Amino acid sequence: MSVKITFPDGAQKEFNSGITALEIANQLSNSLAKKVLAVEVNGEVMDATLPIEKDATVKLLTWNDTEGKSTFWHSSAHLMAEAIESLYKGIKFGIGPPIEHGFYYDIDTGDTTLTLSDLEKIEKKMLELANKKNEYKRKPISKEEAISYFKDKGDEYKLELLEGLEDGSITFYTQGEFTDLCRGPHIPHTGHIKAIKLMKLAGAYWRGDEKRKQLTRIYGVTFPNQLELDEYLKMLEEAEKRDHRKLGQQLEIYTFDDEVGPGLPLWLPNGGFLIEKLEELAKKEEEEAGYLRVRTPHIAKEALYIRSGHIPYYKESMFPPMELDNVKYYLKAMNCPHHHKIFAAMPKSYKDLPIRLAEYGMCYRYEDSGSLFGLMRVRSLTINDAHIYCTKEQFASEFRAVNAMYLKYFKIFGIDKFKMRFSKHEPSKLGQKYMNEPELWIETENMVRDVLVSSGIPFDEVADEAAFYGPKIDIQIYSAIGREFTLATNQVDFAQGKRFNLKYANKDNQEEYPIIIHRAPLSTHERFIGFLLEHYAGNFPLWLAPKQIAVLPISDKFIPYSETVVKALKEKGFRVKIDERAEKIGKKIRDAEMMKIPYMTIIGEKEEQNKQISVRKHGKGDIGALTIEDFAVLLQEESVY
Amino acid sequence: MSVKITFPDGAQKEFNSGITALEIANQLSNSLAKKVLAVEVNGEVMDATLPIEKDATVKLLTWNDTEGKSTFWHSSAHLMAEAIESLYKGIKFGIGPPIEHGFYYDIDTGDTTLTLSDLEKIEKKMLELANKKNEYKRKPISKEEAISYFKDKGDEYKLELLEGLEDGSITFYTQGEFTDLCRGPHIPHTGHIKAIKLMKLAGAYWRGDEKRKQLTRIYGVTFPNQLELDEYLKMLEEAEKRDHRKLGQQLEIYTFDDEVGPGLPLWLPNGGFLIEKLEELAKKEEEEAGYLRVRTPHIAKEALYIRSGHIPYYKESMFPPMELDNVKYYLKAMNCPHHHKIFAAMPKSYKDLPIRLAEYGMCYRYEDSGSLFGLMRVRSLTINDAHIYCTKEQFASEFRAVNAMYLKYFKIFGIDKFKMRFSKHEPSKLGQKYMNEPELWIETENMVRDVLVSSGIPFDEVADEAAFYGPKIDIQIYSAIGREFTLATNQVDFAQGKRFNLKYANKDNQEEYPIIIHRAPLSTHERFIGFLLEHYAGNFPLWLAPKQIAVLPISDKFIPYSETVVKALKEKGFRVKIDERAEKIGKKIRDAEMMKIPYMTIIGEKEEQNKQISVRKHGKGDIGALTIEDFAVLLQEESVY
Repeated sequence: MSVKITFPDGAQKEFNSGITALEIANQLSNSLAKKVLAVEVNGEVMDATLPIEKDATVKLLTWNDTEGKSTFWHSSAHLMAEAIESLYKGIKFGIGPPIEHGFYYDIDTGDTTLTLSDLEKIEKKMLELANKKNEYKRKPISKEEAISYFKDKGDEYKLELLEGLEDGSITFYTQGEFTDLCRGPHIPHTGHIKAIKLMKLAGAYWRGDEKRKQLTRIYGVTFPNQLELDEYLKMLEEAEKRDHRKLGQQLEIYTFDDEVGPGLPLWLPNGGFLIEKLEELAKKEEEEAGYLRVRTPHIAKEALYIRSGHIPYYKESMFPPMELDNVKYYLKAMNCPHHHKIFAAMPKSYKDLPIRLAEYGMCYRYEDSGSLFGLMRVRSLTINDAHIYCTKEQFASEFRAVNAMYLKYFKIFGIDKFKMRFSKHEPSKLGQKYMNEPELWIETENMVRDVLVSSGIPFDEVADEAAFYGPKIDIQIYSAIGREFTLATNQVDFAQGKRFNLKYANKDNQEEYPIIIHRAPLSTHERFIGFLLEHYAGNFPLWLAPKQIAVLPISDKFIPYSETVVKALKEKGFRVKIDERAEKIGKKIRDAEMMKIPYMTIIGEKEEQNKQISVRKHGKGDIGALTIEDFAVLLQEESVY
Repeated sequence: MSVKITFPDGAQKEFNSGITALEIANQLSNSLAKKVLAVEVNGEVMDATLPIEKDATVKLLTWNDTEGKSTFWHSSAHLMAEAIESLYKGIKFGIGPPIEHGFYYDIDTGDTTLTLSDLEKIEKKMLELANKKNEYKRKPISKEEAISYFKDKGDEYKLELLEGLEDGSITFYTQGEFTDLCRGPHIPHTGHIKAIKLMKLAGAYWRGDEKRKQLTRIYGVTFPNQLELDEYLKMLEEAEKRDHRKLGQQLEIYTFDDEVGPGLPLWLPNGGFLIEKLEELAKKEEEEAGYLRVRTPHIAKEALYIRSGHIPYYKESMFPPMELDNVKYYLKAMNCPHHHKIFAAMPKSYKDLPIRLAEYGMCYRYEDSGSLFGLMRVRSLTINDAHIYCTKEQFASEFRAVNAMYLKYFKIFGIDKFKMRFSKHEPSKLGQKYMNEPELWIETENMVRDVLVSSGIPFDEVADEAAFYGPKIDIQIYSAIGREFTLATNQVDFAQGKRFNLKYANKDNQEEYPIIIHRAPLSTHERFIGFLLEHYAGNFPLWLAPKQIAVLPISDKFIPYSETVVKALKEKGFRVKIDERAEKIGKKIRDAEMMKIPYMTIIGEKEEQNKQISVRKHGKGDIGALTIEDFAVLLQEESVY
């Protein structure tokens, strides 16, 4: 018996039935086999050591794949547990999942109290165990046997987890001396783990329930080599310096207020300026691309969100209702239902399509107060939103144009590294997490893949992460220090047209539903400005900087001439701030540097006499004495994006 | 005994105690006396025929005063009641107040059914009774006697009204054969009423309560001469043609949707365009005037609105709360509390003042669904908002600059007629409707008056219409057809600085609270665009028109050349729309005229051959054939405001 394996590039090959992904990799290339961490078989991630017994589409997963990394970190959590168990007595284990960067394990340390010095000890033990190249061995087990194992071990946490599992679906994984209740998958052996850093200790309630016991959570991150770990730690250090919350306060970008509420940023004038500039850019680009601007209120009746599916599928992320004249009103979590209503109110035939409705609309989403984080996780978010209503024939060119707009923005903001993540539905969740339209899912997912492939944009495909109304493309971008941000999404929507009865007359004067593209290339103001603060380390390029030039008179005596300088620079269109305080020039320079104003002009005796200004560039130092004219010429190029 | 009377111009004169306003007028000028309808004595409006027994500030009220008109219409309601009582048997009377334009009376017609032809009959009778010049005679009456009178008459409505009145405060007014329970004031006699139009019949529940009897409401309007009535009716007719709701639909400006909710406009692309243009204008003007732009969320915790005073003083106009994490959140009804929080987060000494924070912020107010009206009364409103935080010394120049901005906008939009209405507090309502700061009220009201007087802006002073935190200036503007709109308000706020603890360090490094000016010269988008639709009759000036030029090919054959015309015009910065439908040119022109697109260019054989376009101006007709270059030059001046 043989099985036919289809690879991501479409190539097909026959193998003996029961072959493992690792064996396939070995046949292909020995060096590849050394890198294989797991495998995706027909969209499902599993151990690379499991036999494949039917024809299948197979993707070998390495460190370069998100799922490969995630499996690596999951296995590292088990390795950490093994190390802890071998070092301390009486430890009980809760859960140990991979996270965005690394993994954690929640443990009950009993009488032992762990400190930071323990982390070093555990790291050392982990490396020692990793070196043994112990296999991660999978073993299906009956519920009864599993219960008996953890009863003997005395781990009430695992016993509680077992209660929620169904007999027949339970597996154990063992590496070295350590056995865990786990559905996997795992990497082939511990030897892949070459560099380890345990980051911190924290408290975490068992099952997130404040009323239950607080366990000790140990966060860690691991890598297949020391170099990557070193780079990662360096990046973290740099990221801390560039923390958008710190810079946001220092540069007076935004603030929070207790009486307004958590997760609801108030944009100070410097932040307001950035927003205006970003909107100017978006409006210009969107106008050129044929978008029409609309405005919609921030609330609507419950009926709208029942129609849109937000109430059945998304209610937990929405604010609670207000009851008015016996009707429930909700804050909008997305702008789409409102835009659909506008489309519905416009006369349209196929000749009017595509119709592209754009709005920088502020939406409200409920985030748990514990997960709020600066501008990155907020409750009010201003989306660079637009919805494109088009025919099936227009879809490819519209979708391509949207991607081109992303790339244009990336260039403007110096975003060199990015990746698209194509999120698809999961057939088993149709009717629950996803609209129950199996054929339309396949059809639109194929259309999206075709455009992505033909545009040559790098992308990953992932199952079970689509929006409830259609497939989604998440755009991951990397800041100047290499940190990854999920910035924006493109969503393809085949469902809402019908639900909102958004018909147009086609060429044969028959009614049809448009395809809808949801897109937000500049993300939300909150997330994008948060990203830019880190990306630029607060040193906004001249065209974007709220204040471009600080005019610094050496003493009061030079204020009159300084004011003529301010006036002349303003007339040339620069954003200028004068520091008239009775402070020493050194202090004025330090303060302007602290505010990261791109240029400073220092004005004293010599400058006034020579009708010049002494120019200093932020973070660089003196440029020399110039006339205002020459200075303006110098800045010309930087003044536009 | 004599009394000293102070007139509005500050002049003072002695009269015998007990003199009436009418007698004073007679002494001043016989022709003035004929016009006096009522009088304001120390800020209180009363009959011109009542004796004045103490020194007082006196303003004689004529038809030119809002309160004079209102008294005239109130007396007209009594006249209508008299006419009805003389024509029909068994009529019972509810209430008959003046309204913005005219008056109504709610009556129980018993077995009689009134029709439109009855209105003519009543009008005729009213004129006949008016001619008799019957005096409106005031008579204080005991509650017992009043009850006995209406018991005899058999009017249960008046009896119910009497229940709510206190003995000693009750008055009757009688003219001719008709006596009414009424606190007045009234005009001297019916002879002033020279022109009468009863407008319509409607149903109205007694006391606005759906569970009670539906009465017949008769609306009417009266004037002191026929000419003004004719003009008013003509204006109404013109206003109907210019009805912003009709034009709003025809020009695709906005729409409402049942599933979104009443009073929540959705701005279609043409409306979205107008909004963008207005914001562009406002942002430019505000930037030049030194405003800083901020952004704030649309919700806040209850705590914020308790601090601001909105919950105690304004709650009935707010949306109901949402309860989140056990905290009540409210939609903002005004932007001020949010802006105050931003001011609080900014570092400031007297050198930083004035700080001017601007935001086109969308607010939400609860309006009874019955009082919603197109864009004029809505539940979501986008305010051209800003708050100026300044010192007392800066107040006059800041307030003057705000007024200058109003006048600049009036010029841009061709608003030739406007009036300011200076609304003051009412001392007896301190602590209820108004913050309890008697001295600050007087002080700020004086400052406002000084600026208004020294700026030479025409204004009326009215008591008991201030905002709860300070005096208010309502700006009344008149559309091209003379209809009055209350467009915007300026508010002076001496209270919030303290409530929000908004301190700044003054020259002596002492902490002080700023004065805050609330201003919104472009009103809300909703109200201003509603006004502009009527003002321009939908014919927006070229700079503001969503589409400026419609390119109309005579047939498909000329589409290619038409497209080069479109391209050339777009390159010159015009907003162009091409009509490529397979319709006759006549139909295309009619549709472009219907959409009130300022210019049409018709493209046929001749135009293509001569490399020209035939230009047609909306509402005017053909201009002739021109090159694109010449056409662009022709439009140059109109293209900017």
